[in-house]
Amino acid sequence: MTLLLQQNIKKHISLSESETAIFCGLFEQRLIKKKHFLLSEGEVCRFEGFVVKGLLRVYHIDKNGFEQVLYFAIENWWVTDIDSFTNETPSQLYIEALEDCEVLLISKKNKDFAYENLPEIEKLFRVMTQKTHVALQRRMIDNLSKTADQRYQEFSEKYPQLIQRLSNIQIAAYLGITNVFLSKIRKKLALKR
Amino acid sequence: MTLLLQQNIKKHISLSESETAIFCGLFEQRLIKKKHFLLSEGEVCRFEGFVVKGLLRVYHIDKNGFEQVLYFAIENWWVTDIDSFTNETPSQLYIEALEDCEVLLISKKNKDFAYENLPEIEKLFRVMTQKTHVALQRRMIDNLSKTADQRYQEFSEKYPQLIQRLSNIQIAAYLGITNVFLSKIRKKLALKR
Repeated sequence: MTLLLQQNIKKHISLSESETAIFCGLFEQRLIKKKHFLLSEGEVCRFEGFVVKGLLRVYHIDKNGFEQVLYFAIENWWVTDIDSFTNETPSQLYIEALEDCEVLLISKKNKDFAYENLPEIEKLFRVMTQKTHVALQRRMIDNLSKTADQRYQEFSEKYPQLIQRLSNIQIAAYLGITNVFLSKIRKKLALKR
Repeated sequence: MTLLLQQNIKKHISLSESETAIFCGLFEQRLIKKKHFLLSEGEVCRFEGFVVKGLLRVYHIDKNGFEQVLYFAIENWWVTDIDSFTNETPSQLYIEALEDCEVLLISKKNKDFAYENLPEIEKLFRVMTQKTHVALQRRMIDNLSKTADQRYQEFSEKYPQLIQRLSNIQIAAYLGITNVFLSKIRKKLALKR
């Protein structure tokens, strides 16, 4: 159950076998059916999640009622609302399963236990938070400085797996363009090849 | 010189006096005159900075040539391009002094030294990165879900010091509105009081 999580951790830090067992034991397995929610707006996010199987989307409903996708999470990725989880405030986000999902969840209490008893875990989450922060900053800057064509092309090159598994509607929502505009971009790119 | 930095660290972690001295010794003082740059687009960001005195703005020039402000940094705040610093890639950002500034800079090499020799530093930067990440996510969501009026009001309540020290042009740029529109909001709010 925790094999993927163990491999993920190993990329960043060195834990002994017993430490790894302790850390992985702090997670709880959750299965979420397609179209069901791991988190809804207004709830306090009580977990940080590691995706073992499936695909989730993290989004916000803006003032005009549009769904704005912050990010997607597939196998080997982490998923949470860091603001709500850290500050124990109601979330402004939805986390929805776009496929049947298996997720490993760690609570705030268990994460604090890990910080206190397994010092290397500080590094794990420092590095991970840094990566997510970089990704969010890039997304913000890309939205300001790149055309939709460029953003689609880069997204499909960087995440070929996501492109295959997401519907056109989801990709368009992520890029902040209409479905029709996405089709035009795809046709244009197909002609270039 | 490092008194403010020492107080800042103490809020998050417990270091002994000698450890504090070692850590603070890893920083280098830099004075930047108003209107000068700590970082320009295309350069690799070689530092993480702690602001001892002054006010800086971190911005990006978008595809239409507009300056988009990511954030401001005043005394007691940290400033960097985390993407460029972490990945040693050319920055897409400018960091400009809006007042005469005194900043303490730590290099990647010295930061790595701190991680290796002062384990508590992992926690310091984990917590800080988490906070910056939360701030960036809030800014992204606020831009999508709140009116300019709301965003101005919240910004002025949260950062009264910044409102006093920033020009109207800078505040408007941060809120993503025109100078004229900002004046209208201010007049409307003044009438309400």
